[in-house]
Amino acid sequence: MIRKALILLSLMTNSYTISAADIALPRPETSGGLPTGRALEMRRSTREFDKERALSTEVVSSLLWACCGINRPADAHRTNPTAMNWQEIDAYYFDSTGVYLYDFAANRLIKKADGDHRRLLAGTAEFSQNFVLDAPAAILLVAEMNRTAGGERASMMAAADAGIASQNINIYCAANGLATVTRATLDADGIRKLLGLPQSALPLLNNPVGYPAQ
Amino acid sequence: MIRKALILLSLMTNSYTISAADIALPRPETSGGLPTGRALEMRRSTREFDKERALSTEVVSSLLWACCGINRPADAHRTNPTAMNWQEIDAYYFDSTGVYLYDFAANRLIKKADGDHRRLLAGTAEFSQNFVLDAPAAILLVAEMNRTAGGERASMMAAADAGIASQNINIYCAANGLATVTRATLDADGIRKLLGLPQSALPLLNNPVGYPAQ
Repeated sequence: MIRKALILLSLMTNSYTISAADIALPRPETSGGLPTGRALEMRRSTREFDKERALSTEVVSSLLWACCGINRPADAHRTNPTAMNWQEIDAYYFDSTGVYLYDFAANRLIKKADGDHRRLLAGTAEFSQNFVLDAPAAILLVAEMNRTAGGERASMMAAADAGIASQNINIYCAANGLATVTRATLDADGIRKLLGLPQSALPLLNNPVGYPAQ
Repeated sequence: MIRKALILLSLMTNSYTISAADIALPRPETSGGLPTGRALEMRRSTREFDKERALSTEVVSSLLWACCGINRPADAHRTNPTAMNWQEIDAYYFDSTGVYLYDFAANRLIKKADGDHRRLLAGTAEFSQNFVLDAPAAILLVAEMNRTAGGERASMMAAADAGIASQNINIYCAANGLATVTRATLDADGIRKLLGLPQSALPLLNNPVGYPAQ
């Protein structure tokens, strides 16, 4: 419980001032979507998106909550389990306007960079998948290894934890008519530089999200 | 498509003879459970199980299907995405009677060992979590690295893929009144020895599953 309080306090003090650029999210929808079995039946990796159709803030809020939001407010436990309850997985939201850290405790987006940086998720100069740019938004999952026990085993566990959060996105999308795909390709160095992240922050997976191409 | 056919063929020839000890599973329930949002709201890690209440074969079938079953029969795609579609994650089912490989293509359990070996999932002589023995069943996720590109990056991706499959278990359980928890503790060497697995097989995660303690 003390650990939870410290995590929440840390988040609150890190973002004490709500800048005009931050986005308060509406209350997430936490009880809807297809029945779970049907969502699992609909789960698929989709790389073709409707370029014209953006996500509403209601959908963004519900999507991020599904990924790694608080589902037990009393002790700040979340939809995504993590090894030893490290809670080392941070979600960043990318769209054409900027890059935002998902503040799961306050249900808002904290702006970390202006402008469209989805190309950092598509890949690098060596290898890039441009379909990522067709999706109006994407969620990047970053493991902050300073919150873990460290070492190779913790890296493997952080990767598993990123997979867990990513599957929450996949299932939310399948349940709500959205298209997505779990990807490991990204420009880790470029992302760290843009967001001012230390080497202990590992950008592991990302999910472009949008409506399926018509 | 050819790759899919080969995977299916490989599974079929590896288990060409249905032994009397194998278990044909009933058709999984693929459209039920709580709404997805509600399942995510109910998602939690539970370590206290009803020791007296076993899982029916209907539940076992639906649980394993949710974890990593085929959800698009035309091309053998599955509920759990894997990096590069390696399909490197195998699910083993443990209960008091034996250890079984989930044959996702034929929807059956292939017996790999007789007897109760849940202790190999609880841990090792050095560290063990005996609550695992309270659950009537468990699913072990093993990554067969020979199906991947190999190397450290593939290991991280296999760990993410195990997390994905494990979260499918977590969500199925949350949606259907079952208790579970994603765990990384296990006796990897003991498991490989029991099941005759090569060093390329990495036992990564396991989920004890049962009904919650009353």
